[in-house]
Amino acid sequence: MADVRRLALNLATLREQCGFGEAVALCARFGIHAVAPWVDQLQRFGLREAVRMLRDCGMEVTSYCRGGMFTASTAQERRQRIEDNRRRIEEAAMLGAGCLLLVCGGLPPQSRDLEGARHMVEDGIAAIIDDAAGAGVRLAIEPLHPMYAAEGSVVATLEQALDICDAFGPGAPIGVMVDVYHCWWDPGLERQIARAGRERLLGFQISDWLVPTRGRPFDRGMPGEGVIDIPRIRSRLEEAGYEGFHELEVLSAERWWRRDPVEVLRAAVERHALFC
Amino acid sequence: MADVRRLALNLATLREQCGFGEAVALCARFGIHAVAPWVDQLQRFGLREAVRMLRDCGMEVTSYCRGGMFTASTAQERRQRIEDNRRRIEEAAMLGAGCLLLVCGGLPPQSRDLEGARHMVEDGIAAIIDDAAGAGVRLAIEPLHPMYAAEGSVVATLEQALDICDAFGPGAPIGVMVDVYHCWWDPGLERQIARAGRERLLGFQISDWLVPTRGRPFDRGMPGEGVIDIPRIRSRLEEAGYEGFHELEVLSAERWWRRDPVEVLRAAVERHALFC
Repeated sequence: MADVRRLALNLATLREQCGFGEAVALCARFGIHAVAPWVDQLQRFGLREAVRMLRDCGMEVTSYCRGGMFTASTAQERRQRIEDNRRRIEEAAMLGAGCLLLVCGGLPPQSRDLEGARHMVEDGIAAIIDDAAGAGVRLAIEPLHPMYAAEGSVVATLEQALDICDAFGPGAPIGVMVDVYHCWWDPGLERQIARAGRERLLGFQISDWLVPTRGRPFDRGMPGEGVIDIPRIRSRLEEAGYEGFHELEVLSAERWWRRDPVEVLRAAVERHALFC
Repeated sequence: MADVRRLALNLATLREQCGFGEAVALCARFGIHAVAPWVDQLQRFGLREAVRMLRDCGMEVTSYCRGGMFTASTAQERRQRIEDNRRRIEEAAMLGAGCLLLVCGGLPPQSRDLEGARHMVEDGIAAIIDDAAGAGVRLAIEPLHPMYAAEGSVVATLEQALDICDAFGPGAPIGVMVDVYHCWWDPGLERQIARAGRERLLGFQISDWLVPTRGRPFDRGMPGEGVIDIPRIRSRLEEAGYEGFHELEVLSAERWWRRDPVEVLRAAVERHALFC
């Protein structure tokens, strides 16, 4: 059984019901000690106010969502994205976030050049890695499920993400986010978790894959509602040295986003204890 | 530009509009020299009649769709699936099919045991490989897109499919089907095509990944409508020694399945020439 003190809430789980302040207060009420906020949530609430509230609640920040999106049609757009990422790094530092999550970007509009897009990702990360190091912020590449390869991330597997990390050498402030929803199907998953090791494993996101799946856009389940063997993946992470939070992130347009936030958090706490 | 004489039609492309006989006649009219029929289409038309018609039209069979589905909850069900596959092998032999396509099966109902399901696939193939050899039929494992891992195939990458092939040693009548829709996103795709080589490359299926994608159930595009660089993947196959057909398989519930079959075939021929 998972230790409930390890539960963190990715605030996208309540994004349709609550603003940042209400969501954090609710987490505190449920004894949750860590959250993962999104850029838009903090922009509406105010970054300084958010930092103060998190401190007052004794709330850690597991990950800041999100940077990345390095792929774009023109060099000018790509430079703009890099500037955006530099701002995200500063904000992540202010938040004391465990990592800045990178969703790397899909194919640029009208493009079929997957290899070119992958190079844009590598170049984009290379352009910000020193900023991250300077700010004391770790970058977490999140491979997305291959169904998002065109529109979300050309980085689709943990192996690919770790290959990018390795190019920066040991000690660079870069690693991976393991989201069970994106990675559960991968025959190489366990081998790559072991390869990543403690230093590269910057976060662990949990939700479930429903059957039948609607796939896209947002159709995730709470742990235990679907087919992912979350405890097994958690065990592999722990064997590799991971000691961080289990960040619950349930993006569910037609089910959990429509429910009362108290009901959602109650389910999150119960299901984390039972199914993670 | 792709050679139109290499175009084959997977008859699922016309499954909502035509029965087997009408579809084959239409292909012949368009100068298409090879088709891939499905089990249900042949059961309705009659296998012997189908064999006769194919011979009379001078039509080759690229692949017979489909065997597999080795994963099931009980040993009795799994034995039944193996018997089904043995029948499919006999039918593939009668058709003179280039291969029997294997869609290996997803997780059994209520199961989260991905590793167990993968073993069922390996055991299932092991149970039929001698039948295939005896009948002179080659088995083509088709890795499905990871969005089908739970419900269609726990074999999700070409690497994984080739690992299964390798377990049977060189000369065994087993290889892979490369379907660009299922594989295009894979960072290991080109390396694995080269690894497969001529002997293991039993087929090449083409369609396109639309953006935005609806994902599931059936939302494929004609070549050129989406983001897959089909000529590049074709080139890698040819470099690896593949000389077979380009089997067009467009499963499109809301677009191509609703159009007149003549219009569909005209588009298939034109788009194959332009975008493959």
